[in-house]
Amino acid sequence: MPLLTVTRRLTFNAAHRIHNPALSDDENARLFGRCNSPNWHGHNYTLEVSVTGEPDPVSGYVIDLAQLKLLVERTLLDHVDHHNFNLDVPAMAGTNPTAENIILMFWRVLEPAIRPRTLSRLKLWETENNHVEYDGR
Amino acid sequence: MPLLTVTRRLTFNAAHRIHNPALSDDENARLFGRCNSPNWHGHNYTLEVSVTGEPDPVSGYVIDLAQLKLLVERTLLDHVDHHNFNLDVPAMAGTNPTAENIILMFWRVLEPAIRPRTLSRLKLWETENNHVEYDGR
Amino acid sequence: MPLLTVTRRLTFNAAHRIHNPALSDDENARLFGRCNSPNWHGHNYTLEVSVTGEPDPVSGYVIDLAQLKLLVERTLLDHVDHHNFNLDVPAMAGTNPTAENIILMFWRVLEPAIRPRTLSRLKLWETENNHVEYDGR
Amino acid sequence: MPLLTVTRRLTFNAAHRIHNPALSDDENARLFGRCNSPNWHGHNYTLEVSVTGEPDPVSGYVIDLAQLKLLVERTLLDHVDHHNFNLDVPAMAGTNPTAENIILMFWRVLEPAIRPRTLSRLKLWETENNHVEYDGR
Amino acid sequence: MPLLTVTRRLTFNAAHRIHNPALSDDENARLFGRCNSPNWHGHNYTLEVSVTGEPDPVSGYVIDLAQLKLLVERTLLDHVDHHNFNLDVPAMAGTNPTAENIILMFWRVLEPAIRPRTLSRLKLWETENNHVEYDGR
Amino acid sequence: MPLLTVTRRLTFNAAHRIHNPALSDDENARLFGRCNSPNWHGHNYTLEVSVTGEPDPVSGYVIDLAQLKLLVERTLLDHVDHHNFNLDVPAMAGTNPTAENIILMFWRVLEPAIRPRTLSRLKLWETENNHVEYDGR
Repeated sequence: MPLLTVTRRLTFNAAHRIHNPALSDDENARLFGRCNSPNWHGHNYTLEVSVTGEPDPVSGYVIDLAQLKLLVERTLLDHVDHHNFNLDVPAMAGTNPTAENIILMFWRVLEPAIRPRTLSRLKLWETENNHVEYDGR
Repeated sequence: MPLLTVTRRLTFNAAHRIHNPALSDDENARLFGRCNSPNWHGHNYTLEVSVTGEPDPVSGYVIDLAQLKLLVERTLLDHVDHHNFNLDVPAMAGTNPTAENIILMFWRVLEPAIRPRTLSRLKLWETENNHVEYDGR
Repeated sequence: MPLLTVTRRLTFNAAHRIHNPALSDDENARLFGRCNSPNWHGHNYTLEVSVTGEPDPVSGYVIDLAQLKLLVERTLLDHVDHHNFNLDVPAMAGTNPTAENIILMFWRVLEPAIRPRTLSRLKLWETENNHVEYDGR
Repeated sequence: MPLLTVTRRLTFNAAHRIHNPALSDDENARLFGRCNSPNWHGHNYTLEVSVTGEPDPVSGYVIDLAQLKLLVERTLLDHVDHHNFNLDVPAMAGTNPTAENIILMFWRVLEPAIRPRTLSRLKLWETENNHVEYDGR
Repeated sequence: MPLLTVTRRLTFNAAHRIHNPALSDDENARLFGRCNSPNWHGHNYTLEVSVTGEPDPVSGYVIDLAQLKLLVERTLLDHVDHHNFNLDVPAMAGTNPTAENIILMFWRVLEPAIRPRTLSRLKLWETENNHVEYDGR
Repeated sequence: MPLLTVTRRLTFNAAHRIHNPALSDDENARLFGRCNSPNWHGHNYTLEVSVTGEPDPVSGYVIDLAQLKLLVERTLLDHVDHHNFNLDVPAMAGTNPTAENIILMFWRVLEPAIRPRTLSRLKLWETENNHVEYDGR
């Protein structure tokens, strides 16, 4: 049976500040420049969620992407959309909200929520020029 | 010798209806919602066709992408563009035209047509938010 | 007071066939080519709805774009999304569903629904290469 | 002599919160919903700056767009990029940072800075779905 | 009768060099910087051609956009696509190929070719960040 | 420790001509058609540079993408942007500047420059329809 990968694109808006609470303010400013700006900045984040599997013989779907969208919104995006990654998101507490650390938190939330389907890849764009991807390895 | 992957993007417009002819109308409506709407809806599909190989030492091409475009149009897209996947496409007869089933049919047509070059990946977007990819495994 | 124009982008999917019921089948085929294909084709339509006015001194909005989105969906897009412009849309009965005729119908529905705000422009894309715009004149 | 309009696109990232300081917290929450979220959210804003005029007979340019980019960055975007519209931008003090109020502030800064050239239009996208435009009237 | 504006998007690739032959090499280098680079550079240009009119009562079209595409290709783009604006295009002889001067030449070619239809606007993108528009005034 | 892939998108403009200097002019014209046009054409190239690794425990970054951008510009793009691949780029001397040969040269420059980080993928778009990717194998 063939293995296909289906992908749903979603967007959300959030504030953050690149800041490692274990470092001094001077070190944070030196390391992160204007991304450490104290009163936050923000992004229109774009997230792609990919699930790999065989098409169901009855539905013809690997997964119903309308249901996948709802699942990602309820378990994840409703908790970060229009929020501040440093202040409002318990799963990021004490963590520097780089795109890398955000995508790892997203994986920890989504991978069990999507089971028994297989979450195979997340891609997260901070801007049209910068993105990160993770496949669970 | 290095292996490169070259990709050509193409677009086409088609009508379809997500409908499994082996199920009752009620089951189809329940499973597929408005995607089962009886009088069809449609999409501007985007297809990316990828070929992997070594660049030819004379041309510098893995494959001439202008020729790949013509081959994909003649063998495949001329038969689906401005058509109805449920009614007009013999290769889809009896098959529910989900993006998953469409891309598998596309692979069965294109893989032998592109030989001895290696078709390595197809990606098919139904909308800017939904796509499927397949690499032949 | 300054006049600003705010715009909300929405998308929907529909089937259609370019066909003038007052002409013979042969004339339709000659005039419209593959766009007259009998079993329909379809598009991911993109619609931009623009409203012009002064910002409200309390809200700072010309119009709340979240509310404008809901209004456009309820009064218009819920009746065409995942439907067939030739068969399913009473407001298009007897009308050839070119982008031009679709946008004029959209204006007739939206202009009174948006009052007393001023609908100032509609733009409708059938594909990434083709669009039409109308400003009520 | 012909009049041409040339446009430069720029991007910046900022945090904001839709909040009218003259209203109570309850009224703000009711009017603005999640856009009033207390710890800010943010956007990848896109700005298009348009200048209208005759092409210079020596340079062939209406205005050198590389110089226009530098002027917009120095006079405007360096003061808002990676900042918070509610907290960090003196020109927005006491103003609810809707896209409408932001673009009016941008016009007040850019119109005199671009003289004697004619600033003819600003367009500002908050997201891919929402934008505002202003032509000085 | 309503007036609608329909637009067709087309793309082409060309080389050019911003260079005023009436100036010295030093003046050209000072005025135009790296855009004056002697061995040319190039762009994927995007052109939008807009025609304004009433929809034809028989076809429902302001103009058949498939025919407009062919007309623009035959009268204009076949002569500039994959060519050099400074060396290969007689209509640009002695003219500095800025986007401004290119769009004026395009208007002089297309406006009479499209008559009796009304060419109402041209938009030309040199890059995703820079474009020019002209409406014949 | 998880392995993440981060990607930076960059753009540049260059001229080129598909031409194998080991072949006759007739053979070049026959093989490459209008891409062999003698006076060059050009593109807005888009390059994506991907680096794979573990996030640094102090910065939370796999690599600082602002620094990666500067490194790619200084070591590579400053030498090709606004230049001619056939005439101006010593690393391409005697090589037909197809996208395939360009990306292989880019890999040879960037892979050692990015060490000890791991360059994991390059993607290069010549147009919105054509691109090539390479992962070093």
